[in-house]
Amino acid sequence: MLVLMKKDHTPENVEGVRKKIESMGFAAHVMPGDHSVAIGITGNRGAIDPGEFLLLPGVAEALRVTREYKMASRDFKRKDTEIVVGGKVTIGPGRFVVIAGPCAVESEEQTLRIARLVKSHGAHILRGGAFKPRSSPYAFQGLGLEGLKILKKASLETGLPTVTEALDHRGLEMVNEWADMIQIGARNMQNFSLLQECGKLKKPIMLKRGMSATIDEWLMAAEYILEQGNPNVVLCERGIRSYDPQTRNLLDLTAVPVIKDLSHLPIIVDPSHGTGKRDKVAPMARGAIAVGANAVMVDVHDRPAEALCDGPQALLPQDFEKLVQSLRSLAQALGVAL
Amino acid sequence: MLVLMKKDHTPENVEGVRKKIESMGFAAHVMPGDHSVAIGITGNRGAIDPGEFLLLPGVAEALRVTREYKMASRDFKRKDTEIVVGGKVTIGPGRFVVIAGPCAVESEEQTLRIARLVKSHGAHILRGGAFKPRSSPYAFQGLGLEGLKILKKASLETGLPTVTEALDHRGLEMVNEWADMIQIGARNMQNFSLLQECGKLKKPIMLKRGMSATIDEWLMAAEYILEQGNPNVVLCERGIRSYDPQTRNLLDLTAVPVIKDLSHLPIIVDPSHGTGKRDKVAPMARGAIAVGANAVMVDVHDRPAEALCDGPQALLPQDFEKLVQSLRSLAQALGVAL
Amino acid sequence: MLVLMKKDHTPENVEGVRKKIESMGFAAHVMPGDHSVAIGITGNRGAIDPGEFLLLPGVAEALRVTREYKMASRDFKRKDTEIVVGGKVTIGPGRFVVIAGPCAVESEEQTLRIARLVKSHGAHILRGGAFKPRSSPYAFQGLGLEGLKILKKASLETGLPTVTEALDHRGLEMVNEWADMIQIGARNMQNFSLLQECGKLKKPIMLKRGMSATIDEWLMAAEYILEQGNPNVVLCERGIRSYDPQTRNLLDLTAVPVIKDLSHLPIIVDPSHGTGKRDKVAPMARGAIAVGANAVMVDVHDRPAEALCDGPQALLPQDFEKLVQSLRSLAQALGVAL
Amino acid sequence: MLVLMKKDHTPENVEGVRKKIESMGFAAHVMPGDHSVAIGITGNRGAIDPGEFLLLPGVAEALRVTREYKMASRDFKRKDTEIVVGGKVTIGPGRFVVIAGPCAVESEEQTLRIARLVKSHGAHILRGGAFKPRSSPYAFQGLGLEGLKILKKASLETGLPTVTEALDHRGLEMVNEWADMIQIGARNMQNFSLLQECGKLKKPIMLKRGMSATIDEWLMAAEYILEQGNPNVVLCERGIRSYDPQTRNLLDLTAVPVIKDLSHLPIIVDPSHGTGKRDKVAPMARGAIAVGANAVMVDVHDRPAEALCDGPQALLPQDFEKLVQSLRSLAQALGVAL
Repeated sequence: MLVLMKKDHTPENVEGVRKKIESMGFAAHVMPGDHSVAIGITGNRGAIDPGEFLLLPGVAEALRVTREYKMASRDFKRKDTEIVVGGKVTIGPGRFVVIAGPCAVESEEQTLRIARLVKSHGAHILRGGAFKPRSSPYAFQGLGLEGLKILKKASLETGLPTVTEALDHRGLEMVNEWADMIQIGARNMQNFSLLQECGKLKKPIMLKRGMSATIDEWLMAAEYILEQGNPNVVLCERGIRSYDPQTRNLLDLTAVPVIKDLSHLPIIVDPSHGTGKRDKVAPMARGAIAVGANAVMVDVHDRPAEALCDGPQALLPQDFEKLVQSLRSLAQALGVAL
Repeated sequence: MLVLMKKDHTPENVEGVRKKIESMGFAAHVMPGDHSVAIGITGNRGAIDPGEFLLLPGVAEALRVTREYKMASRDFKRKDTEIVVGGKVTIGPGRFVVIAGPCAVESEEQTLRIARLVKSHGAHILRGGAFKPRSSPYAFQGLGLEGLKILKKASLETGLPTVTEALDHRGLEMVNEWADMIQIGARNMQNFSLLQECGKLKKPIMLKRGMSATIDEWLMAAEYILEQGNPNVVLCERGIRSYDPQTRNLLDLTAVPVIKDLSHLPIIVDPSHGTGKRDKVAPMARGAIAVGANAVMVDVHDRPAEALCDGPQALLPQDFEKLVQSLRSLAQALGVAL
Repeated sequence: MLVLMKKDHTPENVEGVRKKIESMGFAAHVMPGDHSVAIGITGNRGAIDPGEFLLLPGVAEALRVTREYKMASRDFKRKDTEIVVGGKVTIGPGRFVVIAGPCAVESEEQTLRIARLVKSHGAHILRGGAFKPRSSPYAFQGLGLEGLKILKKASLETGLPTVTEALDHRGLEMVNEWADMIQIGARNMQNFSLLQECGKLKKPIMLKRGMSATIDEWLMAAEYILEQGNPNVVLCERGIRSYDPQTRNLLDLTAVPVIKDLSHLPIIVDPSHGTGKRDKVAPMARGAIAVGANAVMVDVHDRPAEALCDGPQALLPQDFEKLVQSLRSLAQALGVAL
Repeated sequence: MLVLMKKDHTPENVEGVRKKIESMGFAAHVMPGDHSVAIGITGNRGAIDPGEFLLLPGVAEALRVTREYKMASRDFKRKDTEIVVGGKVTIGPGRFVVIAGPCAVESEEQTLRIARLVKSHGAHILRGGAFKPRSSPYAFQGLGLEGLKILKKASLETGLPTVTEALDHRGLEMVNEWADMIQIGARNMQNFSLLQECGKLKKPIMLKRGMSATIDEWLMAAEYILEQGNPNVVLCERGIRSYDPQTRNLLDLTAVPVIKDLSHLPIIVDPSHGTGKRDKVAPMARGAIAVGANAVMVDVHDRPAEALCDGPQALLPQDFEKLVQSLRSLAQALGVAL
């Protein structure tokens, strides 16, 4: 249920609706909109009678929300959400953000080297995994806390805010302490317990789409975070499972306009994991900006043959440089800042 | 097997190789390339000994082709193929072609009206179905020959070449007579008998990707046409089957750079059938040009509520106009003519 | 629209309804049921007013049919359809039929050898391809008419009726002349022109499910045949496309009870193409009888290494023998004749 | 790497190999087989030279294992693993186990009622969710600890061991304390942190296949548990994502013989979640036993309209009774105890 206030409502009217909702044992989420205010009700298991609210002063409408997510929905908030990462980089409408770095933090030397490189070519945010979710228990699992400290050092030197993945509750605490944005990976998209912990933090959460998640399931996963109180959720399309082995995953660029239609949350595209092949990354990054994504996240490595993780999908430095140049041309054509 | 000639080969050398191949009971396909000439061998069931050719005058190399398609492969022809439609519109590298029109030819009045409209907004080729493949035997199946004649009339008036679908052998003859490019739809991508008939024609064939075809299967279907002697094949990505009902199909834009890598054939994107939703067509058409497609094909209808076929995915005239404008900006940014 | 007659209706009542339907420009399909008669209306594009029929003598009900297929639907005919192949083998409720033979007819010697073998181990119908749809134009395409004649010879010697695939109109005529049941393969499931030709024949049609067809699309394809007047349609589940390369296709055994629920048509399972691996064929054939299929169709070859087509999925003679024995045990447990 | 001992090896030989492996900094997993002993090496990131082991006394072979899982592999252990649940029910070769109960523990009264019912009709293990993973944060999330205590009570009264799901580390501790087998659900199949915790326990773990996991990924997830020291892993096929909305998921029964071939671990089929439709559960349960599954797990509810979770897929008591009877007939035909 969503209660929409009249344009000329007073703060007391909003307070009145909030009290009514809480007296029914539910939670009220007040969300200021472009022209008025909407109040979402969560915590109810069954339907609520709209009549309970229509007679309260200042109420314009009381809508049953048919979609299962509420706070992630465009109906709840018309205006595009802007997420500020590390106090300086804004992901949201009217601009295009480039996130780049190695797939995994392998050593201080490697991370600083690549951080300087992506910074010099125009990246806004540094990526790099310290905790790596690997299908095999015998594959490189990341440097853990040591990796987080290296990433922080690279951030301090280059001035780039950072994003890195957390795999579980303990890791989440560490990532929250050391990084600027917390990535929840595809395999954890429906790890509801972890999502709820993310909801108790303030840091931006980058929520990757699950391997074969529908867009509704993805928005519902975002809802788990939002509903716990953290409004800073960015979605990230990273390719879904497909029957064709040509690419590692099937990058679903249509998800971008679909999300823009259904939700106010920003959306990033990851063409590195989305294709798994170096030479497909740049064209698909260009596709991402053209379909309306707010940012792109790419793996960059200057020595891919030595990479401990996903070397075949990492862009080489010169390719990254050229990619940023072509993204700038496209941004201009699209009227977006980059 | 692919026989590559030396740069300084003579026409007699090529003739010598061709005779050798034919004497073995196989077919030879001579294909001039950028710097030299390649000769493909088809008709063999097992492996051929390269030694048979290496000693012939003018031969540089004899390569076993590991992929099952040969003539569709980049190895066979390095240079991008250009297809000329209706004697005037070229689909190929360095330019971007816009194909537009109603999903189905419904009447002369409707078709002429929409043809003028798409022409005035910048379309290069007119689309419109006369034979419609419908899942249900009770749905509108198209006007048939009458529809082809209407399309021809619209073509003569506007000067736009036309593309329309053929469903079977008889329809193929008619479409070949009345239209400028012949569309083979997704459901017929592996109708090998129909493909072979297409291979005996000269007109360009637009081969849509099957509902869940791998890219290899798609190129192999193109091979059926090429191998019969028609080199004018254009591929068309139109979305594949997915588990998410958000869109009608899942438009696989990554297929564009994958095809560019594997094949010399041009590729078109159809975001109308690829998404099935009007408001997703324009962003995905912009995505198509950005990832490197050679053309886009969109449904346009000025009265979609009255459309006999796929009304919900047709662009409105004003939206089509805006789309072409934004494609022009992107084309400029990408260094492509439009 | 489906018009249901009262139990005590007269033949004149049925005739009256038929005339009414035809006077409206539609086609009437009279179908005798268990207790009464149903009359399906096809040819209408929009909704028909039930009131047009309710007042006619003998009419019990006039139902709008919401599913797009009518004649394939259980609503149209409650009783399970029985299909008689070659005048002697019945596919339908209460019995289980075993169809076996080589994937392709390779020679008279090979076909007779395998035909005798499968007959001796209990097969009821002989399979064997004369026209083979191959992804690659360079793969073995079958012996054609010669193959059909060999199959006929094997049929005459062993007494087994035959089933073999037709790929196009010309092939359909030949198969109709020489075989007892006509297979329409997965790639042609939506070759509507071919389906309509099948509808004009009397021979049973075995309609394989398309590579990624939904069950509704499959039944709609059956409707194309039924609607043209041939009621002898048997469905065949042969595996659908999947993301896991463990097996060639993903055999969807749940399709069996789903079809039983939605339709009166019999259903066969093909675990050879459905798995593509010899050692998975027998367990999945046992699964097929257990979930309620009416028949199983398996590839058998005594020299699989020499097979010109799909050798790796062919059962060896001794494995086929054991399979039939275990199917007999299961049939007894399930109360089905075998 | 897998070191296979000669038939006539001595315990000292095994000890020697173990010491060698540990001296290299890796872990040794000694696994007695049918005729001899195999020793798996884990902890290595790169390849190991087989020559290191071939000269040690008692060593027959040193094999590079190409699959990424080792301990889950048939190569590691030829003999089918047997898992004993609650000290009394064995899941493994030669017998068929029936697991039944409500989807969710809703109340003591409901759980006891259904537990008695399934016990009386022949179930061996009681299922019932106390922690429910729900796509929506607003759906019923289970009774938690209270639910576990109710389940325990039902177990004590009926004598049935129990299985229930754990969603995170904290829940895992509780489930380990109160239940006999711990279910890890599809959404957590690649929650590697949770899997590793499972590996430190002794209780049997029922690992459900992820929504779109390949069989290799599933076995690799099992490897995460095995590698930490818990050998008691049972796999559970519960349907994968599909494009056809006819059923909730697509039950992949072929996974059963595929797993039997690749691994020694037992496998359960869950046709309730695998189809999501009550009337498809019994046929698919019969399919499960026929293809060789070791157990079936079904939802049973006597008042499905009141169920707080997945009511539409729960079997009614009388249908469950009939199902067990038909499974008994099939078990006899297949030579399996039930």
